[in-house]
Amino acid sequence: MTAGIDIVEVSPRDGLQNEATVLTTDDKIELVDRAVRAGARRVEVTSFVNPARVPQMADADELMAALPRHDAVRYAGLVMNRRGLDRALVAGVDEINVVVVATDTFCGRNQGMTTAQACDTAAELVRTAGAAGVFTTVTVGAAFGCPFEGEVPLSRLREVLARVRDTGPDELALADTIGVAVPSDVTDRLALAREVTESRTPLRLHLHDTRHTGVANAVAAVRAGVTTLDASIGGAGGCPFAPAATGNVATEDLVYLFDRMGRSTGLDLGTITSTASWLERRLGKQLPGALLRAGPFPA
Amino acid sequence: MTAGIDIVEVSPRDGLQNEATVLTTDDKIELVDRAVRAGARRVEVTSFVNPARVPQMADADELMAALPRHDAVRYAGLVMNRRGLDRALVAGVDEINVVVVATDTFCGRNQGMTTAQACDTAAELVRTAGAAGVFTTVTVGAAFGCPFEGEVPLSRLREVLARVRDTGPDELALADTIGVAVPSDVTDRLALAREVTESRTPLRLHLHDTRHTGVANAVAAVRAGVTTLDASIGGAGGCPFAPAATGNVATEDLVYLFDRMGRSTGLDLGTITSTASWLERRLGKQLPGALLRAGPFPA
Repeated sequence: MTAGIDIVEVSPRDGLQNEATVLTTDDKIELVDRAVRAGARRVEVTSFVNPARVPQMADADELMAALPRHDAVRYAGLVMNRRGLDRALVAGVDEINVVVVATDTFCGRNQGMTTAQACDTAAELVRTAGAAGVFTTVTVGAAFGCPFEGEVPLSRLREVLARVRDTGPDELALADTIGVAVPSDVTDRLALAREVTESRTPLRLHLHDTRHTGVANAVAAVRAGVTTLDASIGGAGGCPFAPAATGNVATEDLVYLFDRMGRSTGLDLGTITSTASWLERRLGKQLPGALLRAGPFPA
Repeated sequence: MTAGIDIVEVSPRDGLQNEATVLTTDDKIELVDRAVRAGARRVEVTSFVNPARVPQMADADELMAALPRHDAVRYAGLVMNRRGLDRALVAGVDEINVVVVATDTFCGRNQGMTTAQACDTAAELVRTAGAAGVFTTVTVGAAFGCPFEGEVPLSRLREVLARVRDTGPDELALADTIGVAVPSDVTDRLALAREVTESRTPLRLHLHDTRHTGVANAVAAVRAGVTTLDASIGGAGGCPFAPAATGNVATEDLVYLFDRMGRSTGLDLGTITSTASWLERRLGKQLPGALLRAGPFPA
């Protein structure tokens, strides 16, 4: 294990979308700016979804327009339908992230369609965004378990992955949306994704630390050669449409881990941790990341 | 990875020794009883130390005398000196756990002697306890880092391990007392312990989840063939003489992990988790274990 780790900072999107406190656009700009100053090179800054359903993301267009741009930094927007994509393209995103939830029940609650319909939609979005020169990710949500249907069998995941592969994204992500995965699941499901895609599509992993397996799962991913990992400053986050979907794995917890394992993330632990403290003050609540409380080592 | 995992339940000792709320002896008996009913087979029930320094453990003799005994269950007491050992032997412990802290500064604060002196003491305690037919563990504290001296170099640990090996214990434990280890440390330091002991002494690992690496470190230990792991119900715990030494890795978090990885711990997740809830009520505080908040999966 020697290659660098690419952390996709998702706090402005997944970290904020489920919070009672809605950050101002200025605060979101500051959050993105702090992440970039800490070394982030890919930031999922917002989602272009129905503001009536996710009011925390109502300022998506305005936020994208206001964000300072940097040559080395790519901003992503989450989209679920053609309307969202059109907004994202006008706003000038560098990447889109399209979600397909692996179970019909959760997919229905999340985006009002079946998994098969979401795959058809994803195909159109990937094609359109690709034609516009925008990098495309399709994320398979609930790839490790569903809050409504429970276990997601490998046979079901294989079928969904095959459909997602056929949408032709630049990158394919597996999301442990409700934080139930253990390292053997990560090993098995990344191997399945690699098999289904014949290793032609770069893989990415989105982890939640709901059951304190997030860091162990990140290690398992890197062992399996998947070095693109989502994380959220402070461990903020959760899905508005999944019960008990608590925080993403905390960026600073991963930076601590990989720093001590001799794997570069390009991120500065002190800057990330102080940003997590700042975000706690802005949200008016304690965030679940461990480094926030424990501090670095050596001190 | 197919062999079972042996979890040593340390909540009655490490879990309670640093708490502002001192549990009654009856509550401690109930805690041990609940752990045993959940399937625990080794329980570190108390420490025979100076009650003026650790008032939470002042009832050690009374507790041991009152605990119901079971053929398959071994009760351990932590001891640091001859006086503690004498008390533990009179009280009828099945095992003693002797601590040697790997750095002189921390060893001085913890037990009023240098590491070399602690090794000499450990040799006497192991010899005396062994002669009395009591199983002996020596735990190397701060084996992954020290709250006062910082990094503990491998060269220092090698030297301490050699001295500890020469005390001749039945089992040798490495403790990440302040929760700074990452999986590569676990791999490296367990390999060092195996090398120094020429694989003749069974190894055990004591983890804290202070920086959310506890579960990942447990996985690394099992991958390295070390399947005896300390854990504490609810993730209670901490060292009175180490700043910011927060909770042990939570028993229920490890049970969830290993259940889903197909590795038996012999522990019932529901019983352990409900015991963690009970312990929270008794301590009047929230404990850091994840399963307590998140619940099992599938629900």
